[in-house]
Formats: sequence, structure tokens, C-alpha cells
Amino acid sequence: MRNFSVFERFSKAFKDHPSLTRILVVSTISGGGLIAYSEANASYGANGGAVVETGTKKKKVVLLGTGWAGTSFLKNLNNSQYEVQIISPRNYFAFTPLLPSVTCGTVEARSVVEPIRNIGRKNVDTSYLEAECFKIDPASKKVYCRSKQGLSSNGKKEFSVDYDYLVIATGAQSNTFNIPGVEENCHFLKEVEDAQRIRKTVIDSFEKASLPELSDEERKRILHFVVVGGGPTGVEFAAELHDFVTEDLVSLYPRAKGSVRITLLEAADHILTMFDKRITEFAEEKFSRDGIDVKLGSMVTKVNEKDISAKTKGGEVSSIPYGMIVWSTGIGTRPVIKDFMKQIGQGNRRALATDEWLRVEGTDNIYALGDCATINQRKVMEDVSAIFSKADKDKSGTLTLKEFQEAMDDICVRYPQVELYLKSKRMRGIADLLKEAETDDVSKNNIELKIEEFKSALSQVDSQVKFLPATAQVAAQQGAYLAKCFDRMEECEKSPEGPIRMRGEGRHRFRPFRYRHLGQFAPLGGEQTAAQLPGDWVSIGHSSQWLWYSVYASKQVSWRTRVLVVSDWMRRFIFGRDSSSI
Amino acid sequence: MRNFSVFERFSKAFKDHPSLTRILVVSTISGGGLIAYSEANASYGANGGAVVETGTKKKKVVLLGTGWAGTSFLKNLNNSQYEVQIISPRNYFAFTPLLPSVTCGTVEARSVVEPIRNIGRKNVDTSYLEAECFKIDPASKKVYCRSKQGLSSNGKKEFSVDYDYLVIATGAQSNTFNIPGVEENCHFLKEVEDAQRIRKTVIDSFEKASLPELSDEERKRILHFVVVGGGPTGVEFAAELHDFVTEDLVSLYPRAKGSVRITLLEAADHILTMFDKRITEFAEEKFSRDGIDVKLGSMVTKVNEKDISAKTKGGEVSSIPYGMIVWSTGIGTRPVIKDFMKQIGQGNRRALATDEWLRVEGTDNIYALGDCATINQRKVMEDVSAIFSKADKDKSGTLTLKEFQEAMDDICVRYPQVELYLKSKRMRGIADLLKEAETDDVSKNNIELKIEEFKSALSQVDSQVKFLPATAQVAAQQGAYLAKCFDRMEECEKSPEGPIRMRGEGRHRFRPFRYRHLGQFAPLGGEQTAAQLPGDWVSIGHSSQWLWYSVYASKQVSWRTRVLVVSDWMRRFIFGRDSSSI
Ligand SMILES: Cc1cc2nc3c(=O)[nH]c(=O)nc-3n(C[C@H](O)[C@H](O)[C@H](O)COP(=O)(O)OP(=O)(O)OC[C@H]3O[C@@H](n4cnc5c(N)ncnc54)[C@H](O)[C@@H]3O)c2cc1C
Ligand SMILES: Cc1cc2nc3c(=O)[nH]c(=O)nc-3n(C[C@H](O)[C@H](O)[C@H](O)COP(=O)(O)OP(=O)(O)OC[C@H]3O[C@@H](n4cnc5c(N)ncnc54)[C@H](O)[C@@H]3O)c2cc1C
Repeated sequence: MRNFSVFERFSKAFKDHPSLTRILVVSTISGGGLIAYSEANASYGANGGAVVETGTKKKKVVLLGTGWAGTSFLKNLNNSQYEVQIISPRNYFAFTPLLPSVTCGTVEARSVVEPIRNIGRKNVDTSYLEAECFKIDPASKKVYCRSKQGLSSNGKKEFSVDYDYLVIATGAQSNTFNIPGVEENCHFLKEVEDAQRIRKTVIDSFEKASLPELSDEERKRILHFVVVGGGPTGVEFAAELHDFVTEDLVSLYPRAKGSVRITLLEAADHILTMFDKRITEFAEEKFSRDGIDVKLGSMVTKVNEKDISAKTKGGEVSSIPYGMIVWSTGIGTRPVIKDFMKQIGQGNRRALATDEWLRVEGTDNIYALGDCATINQRKVMEDVSAIFSKADKDKSGTLTLKEFQEAMDDICVRYPQVELYLKSKRMRGIADLLKEAETDDVSKNNIELKIEEFKSALSQVDSQVKFLPATAQVAAQQGAYLAKCFDRMEECEKSPEGPIRMRGEGRHRFRPFRYRHLGQFAPLGGEQTAAQLPGDWVSIGHSSQWLWYSVYASKQVSWRTRVLVVSDWMRRFIFGRDSSSI
Repeated sequence: MRNFSVFERFSKAFKDHPSLTRILVVSTISGGGLIAYSEANASYGANGGAVVETGTKKKKVVLLGTGWAGTSFLKNLNNSQYEVQIISPRNYFAFTPLLPSVTCGTVEARSVVEPIRNIGRKNVDTSYLEAECFKIDPASKKVYCRSKQGLSSNGKKEFSVDYDYLVIATGAQSNTFNIPGVEENCHFLKEVEDAQRIRKTVIDSFEKASLPELSDEERKRILHFVVVGGGPTGVEFAAELHDFVTEDLVSLYPRAKGSVRITLLEAADHILTMFDKRITEFAEEKFSRDGIDVKLGSMVTKVNEKDISAKTKGGEVSSIPYGMIVWSTGIGTRPVIKDFMKQIGQGNRRALATDEWLRVEGTDNIYALGDCATINQRKVMEDVSAIFSKADKDKSGTLTLKEFQEAMDDICVRYPQVELYLKSKRMRGIADLLKEAETDDVSKNNIELKIEEFKSALSQVDSQVKFLPATAQVAAQQGAYLAKCFDRMEECEKSPEGPIRMRGEGRHRFRPFRYRHLGQFAPLGGEQTAAQLPGDWVSIGHSSQWLWYSVYASKQVSWRTRVLVVSDWMRRFIFGRDSSSI
């Protein structure tokens, strides 16, 4: 009895004071030596107990999506003047970088998800609807939604929600490039359910292959796993699968031995093309040592129920029997976003375009971030006359070096490509830039720049405009950025903190979004991970695997998921992966 | 790097020497003070690496089913002369007593399952086929099976397997009593997948009920959870659900507050009728305090999509709107068993009958155990003349007390009802039994019993024949018993250890199966558990909850599941249950 009450109090204490949990868990985990560093800004609190402040009416923010971007927005928003209505078909956040580990049971599905109702700060009034938005109507400031589950005939299945501000963070969908048979026959790896389904299919394949009265050929077909796409996700899945098979399954399924085959099809000339060459080479070599058959320059043309056809660069088409395909080739636009783009005159674009403040172009009070949007970075050359005349304070028609230098800060904030260009050319300052433009007399301080010279100095700069990759890192940073903007919306209305407006008057309210790349991992199986860190620092091997463990543990959205993920890893160390078809 | 290699070795050591794991985990767990006692006979080993002994041909045992009975058989079989072919649609064992906890996420699905390929001793050659047996053919000693998954057109979906011995342990299925609408509209709770589905449906109901544009009435309907059946499973599920709702969900779903209702329908006059009255009363009172609406004497007559009709004993029919029903009223016979019963002349029986050695009546070399079978205990009165003449060693036509006493041991082993009868009447021995039969002169030692007197002395004894309950305890004991018999099949052929054959010559090869009841738990929610232990000892409250934790942790099939289950409990203490719809 005493035992119990101690535990009861203990457990209650943790629920009431999550920080306690944090302390306990930190000591537990660091005892295991697993975590190198960890974040301190996890936030807690059950939401929904709407405490509407009397007096001023709250602004209603509708947030579509509970992925990386939406969740990061929610975690960071810290201003009680908003009322946030979250709408998403998924009542949880999913830590996608660990999905490949879920496919093989290295990590449990539940460990990588966090209920959305646990996310967000106590002082912000949030509520959640489990529904999918199928239409955005900017004219009437409404979104139209559909409940995930059919409701009864009384309850309406569809409903609309008004907004003052709309934040679109619906992510992207898998892209089949309309290749016939892909939709019907392939597995995708976007959602937690996909990962669970893949795991079940892998186990089922081994069970199927152990049945009697199968020809050898048929057994080999069933145990042929094909991964299409040599990006980080496809590569990581192939590596995980290889480990699962060699470390756990082959000893349990003796009949399968010798019949398992993993093939990776990649249309380009290399896998992991977004990584440093050293990593690509290492990965290709490791896969070849592991017996993973990497077919480069292979473009899939068709998928039938039991075979997949691919064309080599030479034009030769071959077809291979397979048991299971995981399709991981890139992302496409969701229908609701396509429809919205048509409405706002972006019908010809490939992705929903926002400005540098994440505001959807051609709309009011609508923001988009994460995989569903791209930032349409304004080109310097489009604004070059405006920039010139803003910088030319004395309206002399020419720019002195001093004038140019004074304007430079604002220019660099507004057009980050300028800074990138300077960096990429290893220039130290404007003087170098002007030298490049070959003005007559750069060294002197009394230089005077005409508009043509100014244009020519900047003419190459726009080549440095970079599209941001569709990654969790970008989405999370955008979410945090946007939350900060929302927090200081009124404050910055009064005293704007952004750069000078080149085309208009005054200053921009906020500094534009700027992405900070923190490096990237490529887990390659066998406790080997390649890491590409900022400053071109490349690390491959066991040590990066430990870095990977540390970072991924520390990046979990809550202490709950952190503990679960770490204990999943421990379990796997001790017991191996589970092979039951659950 | 050093860290890693330590871990690598550590993890390898555990895989190679599972006993190490055991030691580590025991110390971990007992550090937490959670386990009161634990078993030492868990067994390990990846099987399937068929090492067929040369020389003698192994006997082929086909085992149908990987539930409590089958797994217990497999864990205990310890004789390398057998080759075991396991056939079951489920490649894992599931610890059913924790399924109600899985429905609410108190314990993870994966924690209560163990891959069947990890079960069984190293020296027994086993292999597993993921398939369902759909026909047993005792004439040709074959079973016909169907793969769970459709195979391709090349591979045949159906196949047959020969056996020397067949062990049937296919369990039972849910019983709908052919009440219309039950199959289509209710959830059952038999399998792990059922539990997962129930959990998802509960969360979905709360999400649905939070949607806008719902009438109050509709919201109340959606949040009305009905449990049909007041047996241990139904009661435990209702209790778990109540805890999940009050401890976790209501604070996350503020709109649901006040609309949630749990109703338990039971056709009999009380719930938990198989338990002591004190427990039944306590449970009914606790449920009424908790606000669980227990409707006794309510017989369900029909289930529609949105309402359930029940008839009271008075004949009054009422219909109640519901959101979700869990049906838990009893068990029925599987089609394959029904078909088999017809073939062997048991078509009129309600359950597959075996003799006291678990051999299916009317067959050779076929055994059945667990929920799919019942033991047809031979009545004393059927054999009474044979017993008399066996006991009458001097063939005098009468039985002396000495003769009777000498035969008594065998009689009690062969007909356990005799002992039960003596116990239930608080008799100390045969003398008392004979007194009861009112023979003329019982007190004297020179008593002589005629056959009529003998019959009359035993006439009431058969009233004590007990059908064993369909529980995991019975199934597990039967599995272990049968394995022991198989282990000593040859040995006992030569020197039989069973009682004297009453009808035939010599002795029975083995002692018949005897069930030892170890008590029963009824978890009632709120950390309250009722325990009914042998000797009518009843315990209710927190302390039994701890006993329950201890016993259930110790009863797990492997150290892996033991650690998982205990760590799930710890997680729940610290973080509460997860509410994401995964
Ligand atoms: C397997 C895998 C591994 C990955 N690994 C990494 C990695 O290691 N590092 C990295 O940086 N990135 C990784 N990524 C990429 C990363 O997950 C994405 O870039 C990131 O999720 C984008 O965030 P998002 O919020 O824009 O979209 P998502 O995270 O996809 O979230 C979209 C949200 O919108 C919801 N939604 C969808 N449609 C609607 C609708 N109509 N109405 C309302 N809501 C809707 C969805 O349910 C979801 O909640 C990985 C991706 C995958 C699939
Ligand atoms: C939710 C729940 C809670 C319970 N709680 C308790 C408890 O606390 N204490 C207790 O003592 N008992 C409990 N029981 C009862 C206990 O689970 C059963 O009595 C026990 O499982 C019976 O064991 P079995 O091996 O006969 O059948 P099962 O365990 O049901 O196993 C049957 C096996 O046969 C397989 N099978 C089915 N059809 C075929 C086929 N055609 N061919 C081949 N294989 C087939 C199945 O896949 C399964 O592996 C509970 C049951 C449930 C459902």
C-alpha cells in the first residue's frame, strides 16, 4: 500500500509539473550516455480550455496541418491575443526522420508521434478539429473542411471555418509522375501508417516465402524488395531493411536465406545527389559491399502487379519481378493547394509561391510554409532602379560609395542572394563587387556610380537565388519564424524592424525569413551514418551514428517522445527487432 | 567510438546469452519494486534450423494454433524425436489478459506479443507456416491449409500437411448468438488487432464529437460506449475505458466533458457471476460510483447502425442510441472444428470432446486442448460394474473395505469427481462415503460390499463432474501437460504411470490431465483489482492491483515482453496514455 501511494504521488507530480519529468529523464538518459545535447524549449500544456479574454476580441488564426511547419508554429506562438483553430486530418505530429526506422520496427510508431493537443503554449487559446480542408476561399475568408470519418446523417460531414489569418502548412504528397501502376502497386513512405504497413508487408513477405509448394523462382520474387529513389529517404529505408533482414529475419526464416534481394533504382547517375561527393561514394560502396543492388540511371516506366519496368539511359527497357516496392522519388502538390493556386492566379506555377515573409502572393492575411510552398525570392534586377534611387539619397543621379555602403545592409537583408554571391566569389565587400563591375576608379573613395554601372555590378547576383529544400529543418524554422512575427505583429506595426522598402515608403514590418542550414544526416545501416555539417564538414561512421542518435533524441517534440525513442533504441540493442506481424 | 564498441559488445552479449538479459532485467525491474515473483523457466532460441537426427525417423507433430494452449505445448516440449510443424494464421503468441489494457493504450500492442519463432526449445526441431487450417482429414492424416495472404497465381494458396500426431489448439471465436446486426456493428475483443481497432475507434469518437455543427444529441450518441457482457473481459474493458476517459481524454477534449457515457449490458442478474459474491457486489458498487451504467437482466435483441435494442426480464424492449459497442459475451466453435466434429461423429455436440488425456474422442493420434475442446470426463456410474470387478480382486462378488481402499487411489485419479465429492461433502475418506450409502455395518473392518451397495455409495459422485472454464490458465496447463506426455511417450509405453484401466487390461499410459486453479483477477479500474485466490481467499483494492502487476509481469512469455510490459506501465505512470490516433 505504501508503495502505491508513493507511485501515485510520483506519477501525479510528473503530470502536474512536467519540468520534473524533464529533470528525471535527463538524468536517466544521460546515465545511459546517449544524449550529447538537448533542447530546453519544449513546451507543454493541455489546451482547449478556452479562456477568452474579455474586452478585445481575439484574432482567429486558422492553421492547416500538424506537420513540421504547423507544429513548430504552434510550439512557438506565444501571444494570448490569438485564438488558434488547428485543422488537420491527423491529430498528432509525426517525427518523419524516424519513419524509416519505424518501417523495420527499430522504433515504435507511437514513439515518433505526439498528440497535437499536447503541443502549444498554455497562454494561447487553441482548439483542434480532425478534418481535411478541401477548399480555401480567400474572398470570404473561409476554409471548407471535411471530417475524416463519415459522420451520421444528422451530423454534417462538411463544414466551414472563418479566419482572420490563415496559415497553410499542409505539406506535400508523394509524386508518382503519373507513371502507370505506381499508385496501385507501390508503397509510399509519407505517413506513420505507411511505415506500419511497410513493416507488416515485409514480415508477410517472409511468411509467404516460407510456405510450402512455392517454386524457387516465386520465393525469390516474393523476397525481392525494390526501392525507387536514391534520395535520403529511399537510401535510409534500403539500409534499414538490409539491417532488419540480415540482423533479425534471416535467422528466424531459414528458408528465406539466399533468396532475399534488395534493389535500389535511381534515375540520376548517383544516389544522394544533394550530399557531398565523398558521402555519395561511400554510400554507393557500402551498399555494394552489403549486396544492395544499386541501379543508377534507371528510370521506371511502368509497374505491373508482379514486375517493374525500367529504362536505362541507353534506352534499354528491362522488367524485374518484385515482391514489394517502396516508392520514394519526390513530392507533389496536394489537390486543395492546386485549386487554391488557380483561384489566386498562380495556376501556372509548380508550387504555391509566397514572398520572403511567407505571405502567399496575391492574397491578404494568408501564409504558407513548409513543403506546400516555395519562397519566391525577389530578384535584385527586378528592383534595380528602385534600389538605386533609394540609395541615391541626395538624388544626384549617381551613387557615392558611402551612399552605396549605407544602403548595403538593407539590400543584403532584403536580397540574401547578394550576400551569398559575395561569399561564393570570396569577396569581402562592396568594393570588390564594384571592382568586378569594372568601374573606372574603384579604389578611390570619391567614386560615383551611374545606374548602368550599378546594374552591371549587380547583374550576376541573382544567380545565387536558392530554392529551399523540402525538409523538416526548413519547415520547422519557417514555423518558428512565422510565430515570432505573429507574436510581434502589433509591436512591429508601430516600430517596424525590417529593411527599407525599395518600391514603397518606410520599412518592412519584419525582417524576411532566412534559412540557417544545420547539416544533414544520411543513415546508411550497420550503425554507419554520414553527416554533412555546415562548413562542408563531412563525417562518416560510427561516431556520426552516435551524433545522429543524440541529435534525433534531442529534437523530439516532447520529453515523452524523447524517452520513448531512446528506450526503443535500447530495446533494439538488447532484444533485436520484433518479427511478429503486429 | 569507445562508447559504441562497448554498446555493440553489450548488445551482442545479450543476444547470444539471453540469460544475461534475464539477470540484468531482473535487477532493473526489482529495483523498481514492481515484481513480487517471477518464473525461471522461460525458454529461448531461434528455431527452424532443422537438424534432423540421422537414423530414426522423427515423428511429425502438427500443431494448429499459437495461442495459450499451443504456445504452452511448444514451450514445454523437450524431446528431440519430434519434428513440430506449427500452423497458425498468427505468427505470434498474444498475452490475452492484457488485451483490455491495449484497447486504451495502457500497454502497447507489441508488448503483449511474442513471435512464435522465438518460442520453443532449441533441441526440438520446429517450423512455422502462416496459414489457417480449413479442413482436418483424420482418415488420410492430413490437414488442409490456406495461406493468410493470397499468393500469386503460380504459388498455390492452399496446401496440405501430413501428420503423425495432430495437436489442435485453435481456440474459439466470438459468439454473436446469431443476434441480428451484431456481426456488422459491434467490435469484438479477441485479437490484438481488435484491441488496436477499439483504441482507434475510441479516439476517433472523441475527435468526431469535437467537430462543429453537431447537435448535443448527436454528440451524446457518439460518446455513448456500450459494453455487452458482464464477464471479466467486458468488465475490465469498461473499467479501462472509464479510466482512459476520466484520466486522460476529458482534459484533452473539453467539449466532450459531460457527454461521455459508458453502459454495460448483462443478461444475468449480476456481473462477474463466476466470482465470489463479495467481488460481484464490490464491482457493481464501484461501477455505480464511477457512473458506469450497469443494466442487469438486459438481453440484447438487435443492433442497428446507431441504436441497440435490449429486452428486460419483464419483456420490455428499449432501444438506446450508441456510438460504439464492444461485444464480449462468450465463445463459439470455429467452422473448421464444427466440420471436423461432423466427420468424427461428434456432430451433435456443442464442443469438441476429448477424453481425460486430451485425445479427441473417436480418433487416433489427435489431441485437442484449450478453448476449442472440452474434456468429456468419464462418469463413475458408466463404469461402475467394471470398477467393482477390478476392485474385487479375489472375485468373491463382494468388496471388502481393504479391497475398496486399495482400488481407491486409482479410482480417484481416473475419476477426479470422487475426490471433489468427498471434499465438497467434507468427508475424510471412503468410510464416510460408505456411511452415506447407508450400508448396514460400516464401522466394522470386515465390511463386505455388494455391487448394489457399491453403486449406491457412488451414485451422487458424478454430480461433481466440472467443466473447465475457457481460460488461459486451463489452456496453458493443458499445453504443458500434453508436452510432458509427448516427452515421455516411449518411456511410458514401456512402464505406464497412469491408473489401472477399469474397462481394459493393465494401466493407462499417463495420469489423466488434472487442472489446478490458481485464482483469478478482475481489474476494476482506478488501480483497484479484485483477486479471488485458491481457498476462497478474496482480496480487493490497491494491494491486489500490485499483485496483479506482479503476476502479469511474471507470466509474460519472454523476458522481452516482460520488460516491455513493465516499461509500458512506467510510461503510463509518468506520461499518461497517448491520445494520438495511431
Ligand atoms: C520518410 C521521410 C523521412 C524524412 N526525413 C527527413 C530528415 O531526416 N530530415 C529532414 O529535414 N526532413 C526529412 N523529411 C522531410 C520532412 O518530413 C518534410 O520536409 C516536412 O514534413 C515538411 O513539413 P510540413 O509541415 O510542410 O509537412 P508535413 O510534415 O507533411 O505535414 C503536413 C500536415 O498537413 C496535414 N494535411 C494534409 N492535407 C491537409 C488538408 N487538406 N487539410 C489540412 N491538413 C492537411 C497533414 O496531415 C500533416 O499534418 C522526411 C520525410 C519523409 C516522408
Ligand atoms: C480479451 C481477453 C481477455 C482474457 N483475459 C483472461 C484472463 O485474464 N485470464 C485467463 O485465464 N483467460 C483470459 N482470457 C481467455 C484466454 O485468452 C483463452 O482462454 C485462451 O486464449 C485460450 O487459449 P487457446 O490456445 O485455446 O486459444 P487462443 O489463445 O485463442 O489461440 C488460438 C490460436 O489458434 C489460431 N487459429 C485459429 N483458427 C485457426 C485455424 N483454422 N488453423 C490454425 N490455427 C488457427 C489462432 O490464430 C490462435 O493462435 C481472455 C480472453 C480474451 C479474449
